[in-house]
Amino acid sequence: MNHIREKEPIFTLSAGPVAAYPRVLRALSSPIQYDYDAYFQAFYESVARKCSTALRTKEPALILHYEPAAAIEAAATSLIGPDDVVLNLASGVYGKGFGYWSARYNKELVEIEVPYNEAIDPQQVEDAFRRRPDIRIVSLVHHDTPSGTINPAREIGATVRKHGALLLVDAVSSFGGMDIHPGDCNADIFITGPGKCLGGAPGVTIVAVSDRAWEHMAANPKAPRASVLSYLDWRDAWSKEKPFPFTPSVAEVNGLDAVLDQYLEEGAENVWQRHALTAKACRAGMQAMGVKLWAKTEEIASPTTTAVRVPESLSDSAILSAAKDLYGVAFSAGRGDTLGKLIRIGHMGPVAEPFYAVIAVSAFGGALRCLGQKIDLTAGVEATMAVIDAAKKK
Amino acid sequence: MNHIREKEPIFTLSAGPVAAYPRVLRALSSPIQYDYDAYFQAFYESVARKCSTALRTKEPALILHYEPAAAIEAAATSLIGPDDVVLNLASGVYGKGFGYWSARYNKELVEIEVPYNEAIDPQQVEDAFRRRPDIRIVSLVHHDTPSGTINPAREIGATVRKHGALLLVDAVSSFGGMDIHPGDCNADIFITGPGKCLGGAPGVTIVAVSDRAWEHMAANPKAPRASVLSYLDWRDAWSKEKPFPFTPSVAEVNGLDAVLDQYLEEGAENVWQRHALTAKACRAGMQAMGVKLWAKTEEIASPTTTAVRVPESLSDSAILSAAKDLYGVAFSAGRGDTLGKLIRIGHMGPVAEPFYAVIAVSAFGGALRCLGQKIDLTAGVEATMAVIDAAKKK
Amino acid sequence: MNHIREKEPIFTLSAGPVAAYPRVLRALSSPIQYDYDAYFQAFYESVARKCSTALRTKEPALILHYEPAAAIEAAATSLIGPDDVVLNLASGVYGKGFGYWSARYNKELVEIEVPYNEAIDPQQVEDAFRRRPDIRIVSLVHHDTPSGTINPAREIGATVRKHGALLLVDAVSSFGGMDIHPGDCNADIFITGPGKCLGGAPGVTIVAVSDRAWEHMAANPKAPRASVLSYLDWRDAWSKEKPFPFTPSVAEVNGLDAVLDQYLEEGAENVWQRHALTAKACRAGMQAMGVKLWAKTEEIASPTTTAVRVPESLSDSAILSAAKDLYGVAFSAGRGDTLGKLIRIGHMGPVAEPFYAVIAVSAFGGALRCLGQKIDLTAGVEATMAVIDAAKKK
Amino acid sequence: MNHIREKEPIFTLSAGPVAAYPRVLRALSSPIQYDYDAYFQAFYESVARKCSTALRTKEPALILHYEPAAAIEAAATSLIGPDDVVLNLASGVYGKGFGYWSARYNKELVEIEVPYNEAIDPQQVEDAFRRRPDIRIVSLVHHDTPSGTINPAREIGATVRKHGALLLVDAVSSFGGMDIHPGDCNADIFITGPGKCLGGAPGVTIVAVSDRAWEHMAANPKAPRASVLSYLDWRDAWSKEKPFPFTPSVAEVNGLDAVLDQYLEEGAENVWQRHALTAKACRAGMQAMGVKLWAKTEEIASPTTTAVRVPESLSDSAILSAAKDLYGVAFSAGRGDTLGKLIRIGHMGPVAEPFYAVIAVSAFGGALRCLGQKIDLTAGVEATMAVIDAAKKK
Repeated sequence: MNHIREKEPIFTLSAGPVAAYPRVLRALSSPIQYDYDAYFQAFYESVARKCSTALRTKEPALILHYEPAAAIEAAATSLIGPDDVVLNLASGVYGKGFGYWSARYNKELVEIEVPYNEAIDPQQVEDAFRRRPDIRIVSLVHHDTPSGTINPAREIGATVRKHGALLLVDAVSSFGGMDIHPGDCNADIFITGPGKCLGGAPGVTIVAVSDRAWEHMAANPKAPRASVLSYLDWRDAWSKEKPFPFTPSVAEVNGLDAVLDQYLEEGAENVWQRHALTAKACRAGMQAMGVKLWAKTEEIASPTTTAVRVPESLSDSAILSAAKDLYGVAFSAGRGDTLGKLIRIGHMGPVAEPFYAVIAVSAFGGALRCLGQKIDLTAGVEATMAVIDAAKKK
Repeated sequence: MNHIREKEPIFTLSAGPVAAYPRVLRALSSPIQYDYDAYFQAFYESVARKCSTALRTKEPALILHYEPAAAIEAAATSLIGPDDVVLNLASGVYGKGFGYWSARYNKELVEIEVPYNEAIDPQQVEDAFRRRPDIRIVSLVHHDTPSGTINPAREIGATVRKHGALLLVDAVSSFGGMDIHPGDCNADIFITGPGKCLGGAPGVTIVAVSDRAWEHMAANPKAPRASVLSYLDWRDAWSKEKPFPFTPSVAEVNGLDAVLDQYLEEGAENVWQRHALTAKACRAGMQAMGVKLWAKTEEIASPTTTAVRVPESLSDSAILSAAKDLYGVAFSAGRGDTLGKLIRIGHMGPVAEPFYAVIAVSAFGGALRCLGQKIDLTAGVEATMAVIDAAKKK
Repeated sequence: MNHIREKEPIFTLSAGPVAAYPRVLRALSSPIQYDYDAYFQAFYESVARKCSTALRTKEPALILHYEPAAAIEAAATSLIGPDDVVLNLASGVYGKGFGYWSARYNKELVEIEVPYNEAIDPQQVEDAFRRRPDIRIVSLVHHDTPSGTINPAREIGATVRKHGALLLVDAVSSFGGMDIHPGDCNADIFITGPGKCLGGAPGVTIVAVSDRAWEHMAANPKAPRASVLSYLDWRDAWSKEKPFPFTPSVAEVNGLDAVLDQYLEEGAENVWQRHALTAKACRAGMQAMGVKLWAKTEEIASPTTTAVRVPESLSDSAILSAAKDLYGVAFSAGRGDTLGKLIRIGHMGPVAEPFYAVIAVSAFGGALRCLGQKIDLTAGVEATMAVIDAAKKK
Repeated sequence: MNHIREKEPIFTLSAGPVAAYPRVLRALSSPIQYDYDAYFQAFYESVARKCSTALRTKEPALILHYEPAAAIEAAATSLIGPDDVVLNLASGVYGKGFGYWSARYNKELVEIEVPYNEAIDPQQVEDAFRRRPDIRIVSLVHHDTPSGTINPAREIGATVRKHGALLLVDAVSSFGGMDIHPGDCNADIFITGPGKCLGGAPGVTIVAVSDRAWEHMAANPKAPRASVLSYLDWRDAWSKEKPFPFTPSVAEVNGLDAVLDQYLEEGAENVWQRHALTAKACRAGMQAMGVKLWAKTEEIASPTTTAVRVPESLSDSAILSAAKDLYGVAFSAGRGDTLGKLIRIGHMGPVAEPFYAVIAVSAFGGALRCLGQKIDLTAGVEATMAVIDAAKKK
C-alpha cells in the first residue's frame, strides 16, 4: 500500500497519458498468457490484424513493446542509413527532436523549420525537393503535441511520393482522434499508439510499415538486429507461426485489443466527430474568455489538444497548480521550447466528449481569475455551451 | 472480439511469462494517470522505493519500461565502453547471448563457457582474473532459464569485487523465487522483472545500479543519451521532483506496485520456500518416473524452473502438444542451443505451489505415455507427493 | 456482447446507484472464494468488523445480501411483532412507505406526516409519546432521498430513547456522506449500504443492530426464520466460527471491503466535507440561476442530494432527456409523490467532488435553456464557482 | 487492508460458490450504472433476453437480486396458495427443505421421500397423482447438491404435465453443466443461478416462469407484493420501458452478462461435455482408489459434483483440513443429513476441466493416506488418467 499524500486528479485533461476507457482497464486485467502458447500466438495475430483494420492498411501492423517515442527512435535507427539524405520537417518540439535522432544515422540532414505555432507549407516541401532531389527520406510529425498544431500530412505525403522518397509520419496523438491513416498521406512508416486518442495505456506502439520501407530497412547495413531498436526483428512476429524475438508485453497487448474494439465498435467517424466538437467548443470558450490560442490560425489547431497561451503576467505552473488544487483538473504544460509559453488541454479518448470543454474552460478560467487575471469566465462558458448546443440540435 | 480457435491453457507451467497473481491483475486495471501529475510522480517514487525494499538496496531502483532482455541490452550499451575488457560467463543460451551484445561495445571479450547443463566454477573466474587482470566488467546470468541451472553468484561476486571489476547480474528468473539480492553477490547492475517469479506482467524491468556502475556509465563516452537504450536518462526519474525522459508505462507500474505488495506481504522467505519445495517435488517425481534432469547435478537445478531431457525417441514439440491437448497444461521448450533437447516446467509466482508439481509430473508423464514411452507414471506421482507430504508434516 | 444503442452517461449525477470508486470496481473483480472455506470466513468477519469501525459501533455489523430496501422490509418483518405500536415518521416517500410495511405486522400504526419538502419536528415526536406512551417502535428515514431532505435524527433519537422505545433509522443515502452514526441518534436498527455515499455497488446492506433490538426480535413470535426476511438467521454469521444461513454474495462482500477501505483511509471527516461543499456549491448555483430548491429551507437540504423544483412549464422527463442528450449528464427524477415535481442531483461517493457542481449547474441550466426556459446560466456557474473558490482558499 | 492469516485455497473444488471465469471477474469490475438511465435499462433487457437464449425459452427470464435459495423461498411464497395441494419430491436435503417452505403456504403437503443416495422414481410420481388427483403443484430438486445426485426431471416433468399440475424445478447446480432446460422437463418455474456451473458470482438468480405459473401467482390471494419475496413485482422489470420495483444489483447483472457470453460462445454442448468427462474421470479414480461413491448407482451421480463417502474411521473435517493444508485443495462437506457422511468434489464452471479430476483424486487420496487410511492412490490416478486419455484420443 502506498500512502501518497498527493490527491489524484478528478478530471485528467492532459495531452497524454489520458484516462483509459473502462473496457480497456478491464482488458488490462485479463490473465497473462504464456507468449509461446498457441492461444497467445493466435491472439497476438488477431490483434495485429485488428490494428490494420483500424489503420485501414492491408498488412498486419507491427506492434512494438514500448511507448511511441521509443518506436520513433527505433524507426530512425532502422530506416536511416549512412547514404540517406533526410528532410526533417519541424513545426514543433517533437518535429525538431526527430532531426537529432536522424542526424545520428543519416548522410545529411536537410531541415525545414517554421515557428512552433505554425504548420509546414507543402510548397516548402516541394521546393526542398527541387533544391535537393537526392532527398531519400522525409520525416513529419502530424500533430506536434507540444504545440497542439496539425500539419497538412495529405498534401505533404503526395509531394513526397511524387518525388519517390520515403515518408515517416508520427501520428501518435492524432490517429484515432481525427481522419488520418497511412494511406491518406502515403506514409511508409506511420507510428501511433493506444495511449492518446484511442484511450488506452501508453506502453505499446502500433506501426504501419510499407513494403518500400521494409526494403529500405533490409538494405540498410546499419539497421540494428537482435536489439530493442530493431524493426526488422519484429517484422514477422505478428504471425502465429513465428516466434517473438523478445517477450511481448502481454498485458499491453490485452489492453490494445480492447482499445481497438472500442474504436471500431463505436465507429471511427463517430469518434473523430466527438474529438472535433470537444476541441471546437473548447477553443470557442477560451477565446470568448479572452484567452489566446497558441496556434497562429484556428485551422491548424488540433482537434485532439487545445494549446492556449499563458498570459504574460502569469506562470504556467501557477495556473496548472490552481486548476488542480481548486478544481481537481489536470492540464499539461508545454515541452521544451513551448514549456512556459502555453498550456495544453487534451481532448483524447474518453474525455473527448463535448461537455468536458465546459470543465476545461471553467477550470482554466477559474484558475486564471484566482491568480488575479481579469477574464470573462462566463462569456467562456456561454461560448462553449453555444457550440455544444448548436451541434447537438442538428 | 477475437474468436480464437486455440484454447487457452488450463494450467500455465511455463518458464515465463507466467500467470499473474489475482491482485496484480486487478492492479493492472487501475486508472491510467497522467505521468506529469504530482500524484503519479509521488506514486512512481513510492514504487521505486518499494522495489529497493524488495531488492534490499538503499537507493530507489531504476524502473525501465520494457521487458528485461531489452534492459540487459541497454545495460551492455550503457555500461560497456570502448576501453573495457569484459569477462562473459556463459553457462547457457542467455549467458552466451550477452557476449554478442558485449562485443558490440567492448575493447575485448574474454569468455568462460561451460556445457549448458553445468554451472560456472568460481575458480575459473579467479583464474581468469589472474590471466587478465585488466578485466573491467564481468557479466553473469544467475539463472540461465533455457537450461534451468543456477550459477554460484555469491562466490563469483566476491571474486569479482576482490579484483575491483564491475559485475552485471541477470537475475530475471531467479529474483523473487530464491534468496538472491544485489548485495548478496556484489552486483553493480542487477536486473530482474515482475514477469517471472514475482508473478506479474512482463513489460517492465527493475534494476539495481551501484554508484560505481553509475560512475562508469557517466564516464563512458559511448553511453547513449536521449535513447531507449540509455540508463543515464532514467537515473533520477524515480524522484517525484524529476521529469520522465520518456513516457513511463503507467499500467505496468500499477501492476509492479501490486507485485511488490504481494511479495513483501507474503514474506520473501515464505515465497522462496514454496518455490524450492515445488521444484524439489517436481524433480523427485520426474526422476522417479525415469525422466532425466537436464542439470548435471541436482545442486545446480533451479528452484524456479525444472528442465528435463527430451527422451531420445521423441520430439519436444510432440510432448508439448500432447500435454496441452490432453491435459490443458502448457510447458516451455528450450531456446537456442537447448531447443529440442529439454522441456522446462516453470515454478514461478502463483504456480510455485507444491501441488502444481503433481500436475506437472502427471501431465508430463501422461504425455510421454500417450506417445508410447514406457515410464512409470505412478512412481512419479508417488515421489512427488512424498516430498510434499514430508515437508508439510514438519 | 450486447449492442445497446443507448449511450452510457458521461457523468452520472443520480441519487443512486452511483458510479463506484475505481478501487471498488477492482475489488469486485477479486476471485470468488468458497464461502465455507476458512479463508473466506475469516475475510467475512474482517469485513463485518470493518463495517463496525465505519459505523463506530462495538459489535460487528450485520451484512445482508440484497439491497437496502429489502433489508428495511426485513427489519420491519423481523422487529415488529403483533403487540407493537409503531410510530412512523413520514417526511417523504420512503418514510411513508415504511408505514405500509409496518402495518403488515404491527398492532397499531401511529404516523406523523409532514409535507414532503419539510422535516419532522422532534417536538412532534415528544408530543406523540405523550399521547401514546405505548409506542414501542419508532421508524425514521434520516435522508428521504426522493425529497433530498434530512430529518433531525439526533434530537428524535434522544426523545425516543427517553421514552424507552426502539428506533429504526434508514440512513441508506446519508451514512458515509455526512456525520451520522447509530450512536449519534440512539438507533437500534441503523440501515445503510455501499451503493450511495460510500461509492460502491448496490447489492448488499450494512446494519447495526443494538442488543435491545436483537432481544425484541428474539421475543417476536412472528419474526421469520429460515427466510430471506430473517435478521435472526444472520445474527452470528459474521463470526468465522459460524456457518452462513444462505450463500453470501461473495463479489459484493469483496466490493464492500474496498468501499470501507476507501472511506476509512480517506478519513470520514474529509469525505463528509467534500459532500457538503459539493452540495452547497450546487445549491448556490441553482438558486442564482433562478431554479428553486425543493427543500423548504436550506438547513434541511441534504448534503448528498440536491432536489430542485421542476419549473412549471416543463416536464421532468424533458429536462432529464435534454441533460443526457446534450451533455451526457444523468440526473434522477423524483419517486412516487415527488415524481414529476422535482429533479435530484446526487452528490455521492466519487462525484461528491466540488467541481461536479459546476457540471450539474451548467448541464441543468443548459437543459432548461434549450427547452426555452429563461434562466441565467452564467449567474449559476458564477455562484457555484464562488462557493468552491471561497472554500479552497481557506 | 485485511491481514487474514488463513491462506486462500490454491484449488477450489467446492460444490459452490466456485471460482469464476476470468471474463466474469473482469465484467464484475464494469462501471456501476444508474438503474433508471436508459442505457442500463436497455442493458438489463438484453441480459434478460440472453438468459432466455441460454435457457432456450421464449420469454425474457426473470432476474432476482439475491442468491437462488432465496429465490426458491420466494417461489414457494409467490406460487403456493392456501388452496394448493403440493407434492414435494425429496431425494436429499434441499428437496426435503422445500417441503418446509411449502408447508407455510399450502393446503396440504404430500411428500415422496427416498433415501438421500437414491433418486425419485417417476412411477412414484405417477402413483401419487393416482392417489391424489388434487395435487396442484409439484416441486423437484433436479440436482440435490448435498447428495450429488440427479433426479429424472424429464420423466417426472412429463408425468406432472400429463396430470395438469405445475412443476417447480430447482436446477441451481445442474443447469449450465448438463443438458437440462425448462422445456425439457415441462417446468413452470425453473430456478438457476450463475454461481455454480456457469462459473459466476452467487448473488443473483435466473428464473424461467411459464404463463401458467404467472397466472397461478396472479390468482394467489397470498402472493406477496411490494416485497423482496414477490415474483409478481418483477414480472415486467426485464423491459427497458418498465421501472425496477427495487434497485437491481448492478454489479451482479454485469457479471451475469459475461457468464452468459462465456456459456453461449463456448457452446452449451461443449460445456456439458467437459463437466461430464471431469466427473466421470473423478468417479473412476475415486473408485479405483477404494473410495465409495455416495450415489447408490453411478447413473444418478451428478456430472457437476462427485459425492464420496467418508471412510468409517475418519471424520469429514479431518479430510477437508488435510486436503487444504497439505495440498491447498478445498472440497465441500455435506449439508444437514448428509453432513459428516460424505465429501463433495465440485466440477463446475472453470474447474470442470478433466485434469482437475487428477487434482481431486490425488489430493483426496493423499489426505486419506496422511490420516492413516490404506488406499491405493496410484490406482486412483491411473484410472482417472485412463478416462481422460481415452476421451481425448477419440
